[in-house]
Amino acid sequence: MLLCDIGNTSYHFLDSTKDYKESVSSFKPSSIKTEVFYICVNSHVKKILQDLENWIDLSSHVDMTNYYETMGIDRIVASQAIKNGVIVDAGSAITVDVVKNGMFEGGFIYPGTDAMSKTYKDISPALDYPFNFKLDLHKLPKNSQDAISYGYLKTLYSEVTSYDMEIYLTGGDAKKLETLFENAEVDEMLIFKGMKKIISKM
Amino acid sequence: MLLCDIGNTSYHFLDSTKDYKESVSSFKPSSIKTEVFYICVNSHVKKILQDLENWIDLSSHVDMTNYYETMGIDRIVASQAIKNGVIVDAGSAITVDVVKNGMFEGGFIYPGTDAMSKTYKDISPALDYPFNFKLDLHKLPKNSQDAISYGYLKTLYSEVTSYDMEIYLTGGDAKKLETLFENAEVDEMLIFKGMKKIISKM
Repeated sequence: MLLCDIGNTSYHFLDSTKDYKESVSSFKPSSIKTEVFYICVNSHVKKILQDLENWIDLSSHVDMTNYYETMGIDRIVASQAIKNGVIVDAGSAITVDVVKNGMFEGGFIYPGTDAMSKTYKDISPALDYPFNFKLDLHKLPKNSQDAISYGYLKTLYSEVTSYDMEIYLTGGDAKKLETLFENAEVDEMLIFKGMKKIISKM
Repeated sequence: MLLCDIGNTSYHFLDSTKDYKESVSSFKPSSIKTEVFYICVNSHVKKILQDLENWIDLSSHVDMTNYYETMGIDRIVASQAIKNGVIVDAGSAITVDVVKNGMFEGGFIYPGTDAMSKTYKDISPALDYPFNFKLDLHKLPKNSQDAISYGYLKTLYSEVTSYDMEIYLTGGDAKKLETLFENAEVDEMLIFKGMKKIISKM
């Protein structure tokens, strides 16, 4: 079984043995002849896939009752992978979703690390620092790098840990946030677990 | 006595009776012949003012012991205006500074409302919503507008209120944040109070 999670920049595949990525700009989905179960948040790719019979869109097999209309399918599917916890999916945006007893409770959207770096830099060249992910969260900053790092990371940290639930880190930037959320479980396959759960009910 | 707080976009004046603003791009500081006490974070304007004898830079009269070298002079001066509390200065950036018993304890920098709106929009056109400042902070969002509003505002709110101190809202966007921090004191003259305190010690 071939699974594929398509974002704005890449196709993320999982076959029976391993996961790998292909670039949205160069990969030709028609080159695959076997059955592919996919989810896709990229509207351009979505159109191309509609005409390929072996590409099966899982979004039409999701019970949407508990979610909202404009919610990204990647968030919905990841939410199905766990029974209780907070999912922090760190990509171009960081989405934070809470699941209790298998039910989606709600969630929020925070800028991803690259987007937020750019934001500070654009406000002022004086704020053009890389984030300090090893920041001391219990001490108010007295230097510029920590002042922006605290602004970006401490606020997120406080909110996410306030739910007092297991934290699941996923997405391309999960590793960056690992030092911050030291008790979190990093699971880059979370979305595929959700996809498999949906397929098992089809 | 004429006071002036100069930012990236405007000269903010206070004379004995009222405050008013002039645009950085069109105002000519040499048109003023009386004594002006100023602070300035705009490096271009700073150079022009150096040659004008009646413009007196207050930054050289500030005891820097307790602050850090790259800290904006506007934050430093505002911090001198209060004895205890959190100053939330909402402009192109939102700076949050904590003062205890007249001492600066540290602070952080968060993107301003316009900068953060642009950040979400640039991540995805699907996130191009105005922030909902009347958001229910005690409920996890289930729609896109609230999902970004919560990401931006709840995280800031939780951090700022966690100090359990009087909150002072100032800066051009102070009014926008007023509904969020309902017990805060809005004081758009805070920086001038700090300036007057420094002048009184000169």
